[in-house]
Amino acid sequence: MAETYAAIFVVLAAAVGLAFAIYKFYWVKKMPEGTDLMASISAKIRKGAMAYLKRQYKTVSVFFIVMLVILGIMAAFGVLSPFVPFAFLSGGFFSGLSGFVGMKIATYANSRTAEGARQGLNKGLKIAFSSGTVMGLTVVGLGLLDIGIWFLILNAFLTDPVEITSTMLTFGMGASSMALFARVGGGIFTKAADVGADLVGKVEAGIPEDDPRNPAVIADNVGDNVGDVAGMGADLYESYVGSVVSAAALAAAAGLGMTGVVIPMIIAAIGIVASIIGTFFVSTKEGATQKDLLGSLRKGTYISSILSAVGSAALIYILLPEHTGVFWAVVSGLLAGVLIGFFTEYYTSDSYNPTKRLAGSSETGSATIIIDGLALGMNSTAIPVIIIALSVLFSYFISGGAGSFAMGLYGIGVSAVGMLSTLGITLATDAYGPVADNAGGIAEMAGLDKEVRERTDALDSLGNTTAATGKGFAIGSAALTALALIVSYTDKVKLLGGTLDLSITNTPVLIGLFIGAMLPFLFSAFTMQAVGRAAHKIVIEVRRQFKEITGLMQGEAEADYETCVDICTRSSLKEMIIPAALGIIAPIAVALVLGVNGVVGMLAGALITGFAIAIMMANSGGAWDNAKKYIESGNFGGKGSDNHKAAVVGDTVGDPFKDTAGPSVNILIKLLSMVSIVFAGVAVKFNLFDIIANLFK
Amino acid sequence: MAETYAAIFVVLAAAVGLAFAIYKFYWVKKMPEGTDLMASISAKIRKGAMAYLKRQYKTVSVFFIVMLVILGIMAAFGVLSPFVPFAFLSGGFFSGLSGFVGMKIATYANSRTAEGARQGLNKGLKIAFSSGTVMGLTVVGLGLLDIGIWFLILNAFLTDPVEITSTMLTFGMGASSMALFARVGGGIFTKAADVGADLVGKVEAGIPEDDPRNPAVIADNVGDNVGDVAGMGADLYESYVGSVVSAAALAAAAGLGMTGVVIPMIIAAIGIVASIIGTFFVSTKEGATQKDLLGSLRKGTYISSILSAVGSAALIYILLPEHTGVFWAVVSGLLAGVLIGFFTEYYTSDSYNPTKRLAGSSETGSATIIIDGLALGMNSTAIPVIIIALSVLFSYFISGGAGSFAMGLYGIGVSAVGMLSTLGITLATDAYGPVADNAGGIAEMAGLDKEVRERTDALDSLGNTTAATGKGFAIGSAALTALALIVSYTDKVKLLGGTLDLSITNTPVLIGLFIGAMLPFLFSAFTMQAVGRAAHKIVIEVRRQFKEITGLMQGEAEADYETCVDICTRSSLKEMIIPAALGIIAPIAVALVLGVNGVVGMLAGALITGFAIAIMMANSGGAWDNAKKYIESGNFGGKGSDNHKAAVVGDTVGDPFKDTAGPSVNILIKLLSMVSIVFAGVAVKFNLFDIIANLFK
Repeated sequence: MAETYAAIFVVLAAAVGLAFAIYKFYWVKKMPEGTDLMASISAKIRKGAMAYLKRQYKTVSVFFIVMLVILGIMAAFGVLSPFVPFAFLSGGFFSGLSGFVGMKIATYANSRTAEGARQGLNKGLKIAFSSGTVMGLTVVGLGLLDIGIWFLILNAFLTDPVEITSTMLTFGMGASSMALFARVGGGIFTKAADVGADLVGKVEAGIPEDDPRNPAVIADNVGDNVGDVAGMGADLYESYVGSVVSAAALAAAAGLGMTGVVIPMIIAAIGIVASIIGTFFVSTKEGATQKDLLGSLRKGTYISSILSAVGSAALIYILLPEHTGVFWAVVSGLLAGVLIGFFTEYYTSDSYNPTKRLAGSSETGSATIIIDGLALGMNSTAIPVIIIALSVLFSYFISGGAGSFAMGLYGIGVSAVGMLSTLGITLATDAYGPVADNAGGIAEMAGLDKEVRERTDALDSLGNTTAATGKGFAIGSAALTALALIVSYTDKVKLLGGTLDLSITNTPVLIGLFIGAMLPFLFSAFTMQAVGRAAHKIVIEVRRQFKEITGLMQGEAEADYETCVDICTRSSLKEMIIPAALGIIAPIAVALVLGVNGVVGMLAGALITGFAIAIMMANSGGAWDNAKKYIESGNFGGKGSDNHKAAVVGDTVGDPFKDTAGPSVNILIKLLSMVSIVFAGVAVKFNLFDIIANLFK
Repeated sequence: MAETYAAIFVVLAAAVGLAFAIYKFYWVKKMPEGTDLMASISAKIRKGAMAYLKRQYKTVSVFFIVMLVILGIMAAFGVLSPFVPFAFLSGGFFSGLSGFVGMKIATYANSRTAEGARQGLNKGLKIAFSSGTVMGLTVVGLGLLDIGIWFLILNAFLTDPVEITSTMLTFGMGASSMALFARVGGGIFTKAADVGADLVGKVEAGIPEDDPRNPAVIADNVGDNVGDVAGMGADLYESYVGSVVSAAALAAAAGLGMTGVVIPMIIAAIGIVASIIGTFFVSTKEGATQKDLLGSLRKGTYISSILSAVGSAALIYILLPEHTGVFWAVVSGLLAGVLIGFFTEYYTSDSYNPTKRLAGSSETGSATIIIDGLALGMNSTAIPVIIIALSVLFSYFISGGAGSFAMGLYGIGVSAVGMLSTLGITLATDAYGPVADNAGGIAEMAGLDKEVRERTDALDSLGNTTAATGKGFAIGSAALTALALIVSYTDKVKLLGGTLDLSITNTPVLIGLFIGAMLPFLFSAFTMQAVGRAAHKIVIEVRRQFKEITGLMQGEAEADYETCVDICTRSSLKEMIIPAALGIIAPIAVALVLGVNGVVGMLAGALITGFAIAIMMANSGGAWDNAKKYIESGNFGGKGSDNHKAAVVGDTVGDPFKDTAGPSVNILIKLLSMVSIVFAGVAVKFNLFDIIANLFK
């Protein structure tokens, strides 16, 4: 009974989060949109973004229908629980909805932020940050609502906590699939538009960024929304839900019963309340410096983190008095997230040496800035790995891993929940970036005062820093969640009566490791090549328009923005299929060939390599971007110099790194686990390796 | 007793190989050196290369002395066998000697090849290939000599095959350390000189490649010798020895006794004889096309492979009549090497689509050729992983892995030996490349006829293909050998009374995996940044000489070549310390913190990620190089076009990829295993993880 009350509390907290998001949504919508031109530009962006999303959902729904039929058949034959198809569907639906709401508000907020910036920096920040808050609280609200309701339903029908959590895990697969489609599709869209617009507009035609004469400029702004906002929303929805349900599953496996199962959910619920309180502390005064702005955002996050930690302490001391160490696992997760975020910033912000030095290597040309940027990214993998390693070790021991292996694993799972508990506000600081970016674009296109553009630039530049921090959280939590999911997979296999020999020297495990390590490379190659192909189409179209539309370069005729948006939409939807299919087919293929041991090997291989690649790509890309900005702000020859040209090459290479391939790899490693969990029954019953082994015996 | 005869046969085969190498050495030296100018250029290169090697050995000897003291103390306290320090030393010494001899002959052969090319293509090929043969047979001859003699010594003192092979494993650490220093130091030297010469000479001053006015031109040619020849020699010596001793150790663990232990050695001995026979089939006629030349080299390798396979079949059917499946493991290793080599060529040769398409992406500038080149490299990891996976699976089952786990592992070990058995000739085809490259440089600097340069270019271009194939072998064998070494490590731990829980879900294993996966990234970052720093110094020096030496650009004054060689030498020796230290300190640190389970995790993580990264870097780099050459041969605008400039950027980025970081990663993964094996006793007796676990209990 107690767990029912807990679940009701969880649902209520989710509802409060959603209510606050709705309130903020209407608050932003009430703000003035600025001039007619501003409103019309914003409407164009909104229209393009919505048109993309609609077609994306249509494409993805084909996949979901196929999967539903497969899962339905499996459920009908008793291979899966009958709840699974519905859980799968709800995960996918809410993940998609999170992205949709986030994008809706972002496309309303862009012109309003620009208009706010006309009045002052604080007003601009307030609007942009409020739209980020809508997104942040929608993601956590919907996530926790989904979890809470499912728990109530399953708890009414089933009694065994292991069975309940094992079913709940499967709705992660829906969320992961949706997230991967959204991230990959959105990532290809945004970077194809960006690279295409830059290559022809900036480099060939020599017109500035966000110039309305560039036919790809609207597509570029649409891209910020569908990639950075909708894609990120779906992505983090999935991380959030994944971390909570996998920790719940580990609680069941550790024999902590329903109390252990509900704890991750309540920690998340506390985090929502803490995030809402934190948002009230974000504001700034006029004439604020970059540092003040950052300090203001940080204040909100830190207050939320402290509140969340205090609440979790109370919770665990009351509900798990014999395992109070688990509380420190929550703290270690929170801390690891903050630290990884800090080091992401260290490696990618031009306030620190690595990026400054990278800007300096532009002096010997584009080749050296590429080499050094790649090296910087590779170098930056070391510290996050050590942070995660220490956090895992600490969580494991402090939660009692020395006495009970399963308790240690539960601690690791809970630390992932701790890291993501304040996602409501960390995501708000992250999602506000693309809004500020768009606001700057609108200010430029609408010909607003230089002062306004300077304010939106200040907001945007801050957005790059918070995006780096956000990426740190996304990567760190993905690693911990994927780790928890691997353990959940092994529990599931045992539940299904399968036998495991997970020793590294066991042949299928070894081969699985090799294959898993290769998957993030292959996946990154697919997504980067997809960006290249899509960008190529945009380049050709933009060149065509410059040639065929008379008066375009003189500003006398309007560009055909819609065709560019349409090309991006069509090619990104086409290109997202193969990478996403890799994430679904690979684990099933490995399961059929190598069996459960091979699957665990593959999951571990993909996790450890994917973690390193994701960090490398995010940090190389971020550092190139900021090195270019550092030069633009007057260092090493400034804008237009040869050094600047070299830095632009670096930035262009970094685009698909940091906004397409890198963040998608995070989802890939979780999707692989989710698919494996859903299809665990198949691997247990049939696999080629065992058949061959029996033949040879 | 039988094993003594076998060992004597092995030593004799090694002696035959060395005798043939000596004969070929003097045959090459007898050839005419060409004009005085040619002889003097060659002497300058030789002098620079020798000066580098001498100083490298001096630097490295400090490390060897320190390690000897440490190992000596450990042996004195009974933690290690008293043979270990000597075995360590002999491995390092012979590895260094292999590189030395290879470089000696290469620096004699360069001017002689150019002179030969004046007479005809066939003559040029004969001389260049003969010098490659000297290198190839020196490496395998010294390797097998070292193994054979040590086996005879140990067999006289010890009786347990497990103890004998476990001691022999440790001389691999000497070889690996030496190889890592040689590869990293040489790799930094060659690419610093190359990048520096290109950046100032070709790009800034606009003078052609190998122009004698370029002050870095001699350093560039020295670099080809110390990096591509001496580095590669030490590297493959280490792979060769590592594969044989690890297979021998697996035989002992599988309970095959002395018969099983000597089989890998005899396979290697057969391979030496087969390689010598194969070299007689390499020749070509005048007016031969690129295809004829390649066909001629291939004929030699294929004949050797077939002879080696037939010999191994006879051997195994006689000595292991109950385990004849092991023969098929040899074949599968040979085949896997050939296949990986083929796919390396497929991805990097401009005869195939991937590189042609890459050349095409230069049309949208340097950023897109970089993105596509990286994607190509990442993409190309998939097939080698699948080939290795299938080869491992096949070797495992065919050798009886389904019945006896240890037998299956022995099969995997033997397949690595099979892959490297014909190294004598595959290395000859590989090592001939840098000689042809140097010959071309000398032809240019000495102002020989255009026709001569065309011939050396034909030889050189072929060298790029054979280098790709050679890299495929180096990477593939590194993976299999490292795998065998991991298993040997676990056997050693058991022998020392340690307990293992290698399950992936065991916390130290997991953390080890994370750390291991990060090491190749960190290592690559170190080496690439080292190249960048060293190249920067060369750029500054070359610019200084162009400015300060009057008449240099007019060809009236001679450049100060020696200073450039000296700068490269000093900076590469300085820069090689940290990457090499990482390979030695990381496994000891992990052993002390996480214990033996953590070490195995780390080794597996480094292996699977290092394998993928090494392939990616080799293939991205190779493809960029050949895409540039494809454009230079008149496609996509040809030499001097914007496309060509973009391709040059790709090529420059690829240089440290394919010649510094990529090949060194192969050695890193083996060195990590070797160091772990030597220090296994420490990890068994003391580690922090167990101490903490006991505290928390």
